[in-house]
Amino acid sequence: MFRLLVAAALLVAAPAAYAADAKQMEANKKAVVEFYDLAINQKNFDAAVKFIGSRYTQHNPRAADGPEGLKAFLAFLRDKFPDYHSDIKRVFADGDYVILHVHNVPTPGSRGNAIIDIFKLENGKIVEHWDVRQEIPEQAANSNTMF
Amino acid sequence: MFRLLVAAALLVAAPAAYAADAKQMEANKKAVVEFYDLAINQKNFDAAVKFIGSRYTQHNPRAADGPEGLKAFLAFLRDKFPDYHSDIKRVFADGDYVILHVHNVPTPGSRGNAIIDIFKLENGKIVEHWDVRQEIPEQAANSNTMF
Repeated sequence: MFRLLVAAALLVAAPAAYAADAKQMEANKKAVVEFYDLAINQKNFDAAVKFIGSRYTQHNPRAADGPEGLKAFLAFLRDKFPDYHSDIKRVFADGDYVILHVHNVPTPGSRGNAIIDIFKLENGKIVEHWDVRQEIPEQAANSNTMF
Repeated sequence: MFRLLVAAALLVAAPAAYAADAKQMEANKKAVVEFYDLAINQKNFDAAVKFIGSRYTQHNPRAADGPEGLKAFLAFLRDKFPDYHSDIKRVFADGDYVILHVHNVPTPGSRGNAIIDIFKLENGKIVEHWDVRQEIPEQAANSNTMF
Protein backbone atom coordinates (compact mmCIF):
# COMPACT_ATOMS: atom_id res chain seq x y z
CA MET A 1 0.00 0.00 0.00
CA PHE A 2 2.78 2.43 0.92
CA ARG A 3 4.66 1.55 -2.27
CA LEU A 4 1.53 2.17 -4.31
CA LEU A 5 1.15 5.61 -2.74
CA VAL A 6 4.79 6.43 -3.42
CA ALA A 7 4.39 5.30 -7.05
CA ALA A 8 1.24 7.40 -7.42
CA ALA A 9 2.98 10.42 -5.88
CA LEU A 10 5.90 10.07 -8.29
CA LEU A 11 3.52 9.84 -11.23
CA VAL A 12 1.75 13.00 -10.12
CA ALA A 13 4.82 15.04 -9.15
CA ALA A 14 6.32 15.80 -12.58
CA PRO A 15 3.08 16.55 -14.45
CA ALA A 16 1.94 18.77 -11.54
CA ALA A 17 4.82 21.08 -12.43
CA TYR A 18 3.38 21.42 -15.96
CA ALA A 19 -0.03 22.22 -14.51
CA ALA A 20 1.44 24.94 -12.26
CA ASP A 21 3.43 26.32 -15.19
CA ALA A 22 0.33 26.30 -17.39
CA LYS A 23 -1.62 28.26 -14.76
CA GLN A 24 1.19 30.84 -14.43
CA MET A 25 1.51 31.12 -18.23
CA GLU A 26 -2.24 31.79 -18.56
CA ALA A 27 -1.92 34.49 -15.85
CA ASN A 28 1.09 35.95 -17.69
CA LYS A 29 -0.85 36.08 -20.98
CA LYS A 30 -3.74 37.87 -19.25
CA ALA A 31 -1.37 40.39 -17.62
CA VAL A 32 0.44 41.19 -20.88
CA VAL A 33 -2.80 41.61 -22.88
CA GLU A 34 -4.18 43.96 -20.22
CA PHE A 35 -0.87 45.89 -20.03
CA TYR A 36 -0.72 46.17 -23.83
CA ASP A 37 -4.22 47.62 -24.12
CA LEU A 38 -3.69 50.08 -21.25
CA ALA A 39 -0.31 51.21 -22.62
CA ILE A 40 -0.57 51.15 -26.42
CA ASN A 41 -4.30 51.72 -26.99
CA GLN A 42 -5.36 53.72 -23.93
CA LYS A 43 -1.89 55.36 -23.56
CA ASN A 44 -2.52 55.34 -19.81
CA PHE A 45 0.94 55.08 -18.23
CA ASP A 46 -0.30 55.23 -14.61
CA ALA A 47 -2.56 52.20 -15.15
CA ALA A 48 -0.04 50.28 -17.31
CA VAL A 49 2.93 50.73 -14.98
CA LYS A 50 1.22 48.53 -12.35
CA PHE A 51 2.07 45.53 -14.58
CA ILE A 52 5.79 46.36 -14.60
CA GLY A 53 8.16 44.68 -12.13
CA SER A 54 11.42 45.76 -10.54
CA ARG A 55 12.91 46.72 -13.92
CA TYR A 56 11.78 47.28 -17.52
CA THR A 57 14.68 46.41 -19.80
CA GLN A 58 13.88 47.82 -23.20
CA HIS A 59 15.20 46.35 -26.49
CA ASN A 60 13.07 48.46 -28.86
CA PRO A 61 15.76 50.75 -30.33
CA ARG A 62 13.41 53.74 -30.41
CA ALA A 63 12.52 53.65 -26.69
CA ALA A 64 14.65 54.51 -23.68
CA ASP A 65 15.21 51.97 -20.93
CA GLY A 66 13.00 51.60 -17.84
CA PRO A 67 9.42 52.61 -17.00
CA GLU A 68 10.36 56.25 -17.71
CA GLY A 69 11.13 55.23 -21.31
CA LEU A 70 7.61 53.82 -21.65
CA LYS A 71 6.17 56.97 -20.06
CA ALA A 72 7.96 59.17 -22.61
CA PHE A 73 6.87 56.91 -25.52
CA LEU A 74 3.21 57.02 -24.45
CA ALA A 75 3.37 60.82 -24.04
CA PHE A 76 4.79 61.00 -27.59
CA LEU A 77 1.92 58.85 -28.91
CA ARG A 78 -0.75 60.93 -27.12
CA ASP A 79 0.75 64.06 -28.66
CA LYS A 80 1.58 62.92 -32.22
CA PHE A 81 -0.54 59.79 -32.83
CA PRO A 82 -3.61 60.04 -30.55
CA ASP A 83 -5.44 57.33 -32.55
CA TYR A 84 -2.46 54.91 -32.64
CA HIS A 85 -4.04 51.49 -32.16
CA SER A 86 -2.88 47.86 -32.12
CA ASP A 87 -5.11 44.81 -32.50
CA ILE A 88 -3.75 41.66 -30.90
CA LYS A 89 -4.05 38.79 -33.40
CA ARG A 90 -2.26 36.00 -31.47
CA VAL A 91 -0.98 35.45 -27.92
CA PHE A 92 1.60 32.79 -27.00
CA ALA A 93 3.35 31.89 -23.76
CA ASP A 94 6.38 29.72 -23.02
CA GLY A 95 7.90 29.68 -19.54
CA ASP A 96 8.53 33.27 -18.42
CA TYR A 97 7.81 34.71 -21.87
CA VAL A 98 4.65 36.02 -23.56
CA ILE A 99 4.62 36.74 -27.30
CA LEU A 100 2.07 38.95 -29.10
CA HIS A 101 1.45 39.15 -32.84
CA VAL A 102 -0.29 42.45 -33.51
CA HIS A 103 -1.63 44.65 -36.30
CA ASN A 104 -0.61 48.20 -35.52
CA VAL A 105 -2.42 51.11 -37.19
CA PRO A 106 -0.71 54.42 -36.33
CA THR A 107 -3.31 56.60 -38.07
CA PRO A 108 -6.90 55.59 -38.97
CA GLY A 109 -7.19 54.14 -42.47
CA SER A 110 -3.47 53.43 -42.94
CA ARG A 111 -2.31 49.89 -43.78
CA GLY A 112 -0.10 49.98 -40.70
CA ASN A 113 2.51 47.55 -39.42
CA ALA A 114 2.90 43.94 -38.40
CA ILE A 115 4.59 43.77 -34.99
CA ILE A 116 5.68 40.83 -32.88
CA ASP A 117 6.40 41.66 -29.22
CA ILE A 118 8.19 39.46 -26.71
CA PHE A 119 7.74 40.17 -22.98
CA LYS A 120 9.63 38.50 -20.15
CA LEU A 121 7.88 38.25 -16.79
CA GLU A 122 9.12 37.61 -13.26
CA ASN A 123 6.58 36.80 -10.54
CA GLY A 124 3.76 37.77 -12.88
CA LYS A 125 5.22 41.22 -13.67
CA ILE A 126 6.77 42.45 -16.94
CA VAL A 127 10.54 43.07 -16.68
CA GLU A 128 11.83 43.01 -20.28
CA HIS A 129 10.59 43.78 -23.81
CA TRP A 130 11.73 43.08 -27.37
CA ASP A 131 9.87 43.79 -30.59
CA VAL A 132 10.19 43.69 -34.36
CA ARG A 133 8.10 45.95 -36.61
CA GLN A 134 7.52 45.84 -40.36
CA GLU A 135 5.40 48.08 -42.57
CA ILE A 136 2.67 46.16 -44.36
CA PRO A 137 3.44 46.52 -48.08
CA GLU A 138 0.84 47.57 -50.63
CA GLN A 139 1.41 44.42 -52.67
CA ALA A 140 2.45 40.92 -51.65
CA ALA A 141 3.67 37.75 -53.39
CA ASN A 142 0.81 35.79 -51.77
CA SER A 143 -2.81 36.54 -50.84
CA ASN A 144 -2.62 35.42 -47.19
CA THR A 145 -2.00 38.85 -45.52
CA MET A 146 0.75 39.27 -42.91
CA PHE A 147 -1.63 37.82 -40.27
CA MET B 1 -7.78 0.12 -2.68
CA PHE B 2 -9.81 0.48 -5.89
CA ARG B 3 -10.94 3.94 -4.80
CA LEU B 4 -7.35 4.94 -4.14
CA LEU B 5 -6.35 3.80 -7.62
CA VAL B 6 -9.26 5.72 -9.18
CA ALA B 7 -8.29 8.84 -7.21
CA ALA B 8 -4.65 8.49 -8.29
CA ALA B 9 -5.72 7.98 -11.91
CA LEU B 10 -7.87 11.11 -11.80
CA LEU B 11 -4.99 13.10 -10.33
CA VAL B 12 -2.70 11.90 -13.09
CA ALA B 13 -5.13 12.21 -16.02
CA ALA B 14 -5.30 16.01 -16.46
CA PRO B 15 -1.61 16.81 -15.89
CA ALA B 16 -0.67 13.93 -18.23
CA ALA B 17 -2.19 16.00 -21.04
CA TYR B 18 0.27 18.78 -20.21
CA ALA B 19 3.15 16.28 -20.23
CA ALA B 20 2.10 14.98 -23.67
CA ASP B 21 1.75 18.55 -24.95
CA ALA B 22 5.17 19.45 -23.53
CA LYS B 23 6.75 16.47 -25.31
CA GLN B 24 5.11 17.42 -28.63
CA MET B 25 6.14 21.08 -28.18
CA GLU B 26 9.77 20.06 -27.58
CA ALA B 27 9.64 17.91 -30.74
CA ASN B 28 8.11 20.85 -32.65
CA LYS B 29 10.89 23.19 -31.46
CA LYS B 30 13.54 20.68 -32.57
CA ALA B 31 11.89 20.26 -36.01
CA VAL B 32 11.62 24.02 -36.61
CA VAL B 33 15.23 24.71 -35.54
CA GLU B 34 16.49 21.94 -37.86
CA PHE B 35 14.25 23.16 -40.72
CA TYR B 36 15.42 26.74 -40.23
CA ASP B 37 19.10 25.85 -40.39
CA LEU B 38 18.64 23.62 -43.45
CA ALA B 39 16.55 26.22 -45.27
CA ILE B 40 17.95 29.62 -44.31
CA ASN B 41 21.59 28.82 -43.54
CA GLN B 42 22.29 25.79 -45.72
CA LYS B 43 19.75 26.87 -48.39
CA ASN B 44 19.11 23.17 -48.99
CA PHE B 45 15.50 22.97 -50.18
CA ASP B 46 15.49 19.18 -50.70
CA ALA B 47 16.51 18.57 -47.07
CA ALA B 48 14.29 21.34 -45.63
CA VAL B 49 11.11 20.33 -47.49
CA LYS B 50 10.96 17.06 -45.49
CA PHE B 51 9.82 19.17 -42.48
CA ILE B 52 6.89 20.65 -44.42
CA GLY B 53 3.42 19.11 -44.13
CA SER B 54 0.46 18.93 -46.50
CA ARG B 55 0.58 22.70 -47.13
CA TYR B 56 2.91 25.65 -46.52
CA THR B 57 0.77 28.75 -46.15
CA GLN B 58 3.07 31.73 -46.47
CA HIS B 59 2.41 35.13 -44.84
CA ASN B 60 5.80 36.72 -45.62
CA PRO B 61 4.75 39.27 -48.26
CA ARG B 62 7.95 38.73 -50.27
CA ALA B 63 7.52 34.95 -50.70
CA ALA B 64 5.03 33.03 -52.81
CA ASP B 65 2.73 30.47 -51.22
CA GLY B 66 3.55 26.77 -50.84
CA PRO B 67 6.79 24.76 -50.84
CA GLU B 68 7.54 26.09 -54.35
CA GLY B 69 7.63 29.62 -52.88
CA LEU B 70 10.28 28.48 -50.39
CA LYS B 71 12.21 26.77 -53.19
CA ALA B 72 12.28 29.98 -55.24
CA PHE B 73 13.29 32.06 -52.19
CA LEU B 74 16.21 29.72 -51.36
CA ALA B 75 17.35 29.75 -55.01
CA PHE B 76 17.30 33.57 -54.87
CA LEU B 77 19.41 33.51 -51.67
CA ARG B 78 21.96 31.06 -53.13
CA ASP B 79 22.30 33.32 -56.16
CA LYS B 80 22.25 36.82 -54.62
CA PHE B 81 23.15 36.32 -50.93
CA PRO B 82 25.19 33.09 -50.67
CA ASP B 83 26.42 34.04 -47.15
CA TYR B 84 22.94 35.00 -45.86
CA HIS B 85 22.90 33.68 -42.30
CA SER B 86 20.53 33.75 -39.32
CA ASP B 87 21.47 33.01 -35.71
CA ILE B 88 18.61 31.76 -33.58
CA LYS B 89 18.59 33.70 -30.29
CA ARG B 90 15.39 32.36 -28.70
CA VAL B 91 12.95 29.50 -29.35
CA PHE B 92 9.43 29.36 -27.90
CA ALA B 93 6.55 26.93 -28.31
CA ASP B 94 2.87 27.19 -27.41
CA GLY B 95 0.43 24.53 -28.59
CA ASP B 96 0.85 24.03 -32.36
CA TYR B 97 3.10 27.08 -32.73
CA VAL B 98 6.88 27.60 -32.58
CA ILE B 99 8.34 31.10 -32.43
CA LEU B 100 11.95 32.01 -33.30
CA HIS B 101 13.76 35.27 -32.47
CA VAL B 102 16.71 35.53 -34.84
CA HIS B 103 19.57 37.80 -35.85
CA ASN B 104 19.74 37.77 -39.62
CA VAL B 105 22.93 38.91 -41.38
CA PRO B 106 22.39 39.04 -45.18
CA THR B 107 26.04 39.87 -45.99
CA PRO B 108 29.05 39.29 -43.72
CA GLY B 109 29.88 42.30 -41.53
CA SER B 110 26.51 44.03 -41.97
CA ARG B 111 24.44 44.93 -38.87
CA GLY B 112 21.59 42.92 -40.31
CA ASN B 113 18.01 42.48 -39.17
CA ALA B 114 16.01 41.37 -36.19
CA ILE B 115 13.40 38.83 -37.28
CA ILE B 116 10.68 37.02 -35.37
CA ASP B 117 9.21 33.98 -37.14
CA ILE B 118 6.04 32.12 -36.21
CA PHE B 119 5.52 28.58 -37.52
CA LYS B 120 2.35 26.51 -37.18
CA LEU B 121 2.75 22.72 -37.11
CA GLU B 122 0.31 19.87 -37.66
CA ASN B 123 1.38 16.34 -36.69
CA GLY B 124 4.95 17.56 -36.20
CA LYS B 125 5.18 19.12 -39.69
CA ILE B 126 5.31 22.83 -40.62
CA VAL B 127 2.17 24.04 -42.42
CA GLU B 128 2.16 27.84 -42.01
CA HIS B 129 4.64 30.71 -41.56
CA TRP B 130 4.49 34.35 -40.53
CA ASP B 131 7.41 36.71 -39.90
CA VAL B 132 8.28 40.29 -39.11
CA ARG B 133 11.65 41.81 -40.07
CA GLN B 134 13.29 45.05 -38.98
CA GLU B 135 16.67 46.52 -39.90
CA ILE B 136 18.90 46.98 -36.87
CA PRO B 137 19.53 50.73 -36.66
CA GLU B 138 23.01 52.22 -36.26
CA GLN B 139 21.98 54.03 -33.09
CA ALA B 140 19.45 53.17 -30.39
CA ALA B 141 17.77 54.97 -27.49
CA ASN B 142 19.04 52.22 -25.12
CA SER B 143 22.17 50.08 -24.87
CA ASN B 144 20.45 46.67 -24.68
CA THR B 145 20.64 45.68 -28.40
CA MET B 146 17.58 44.31 -30.21
CA PHE B 147 18.28 40.88 -28.68
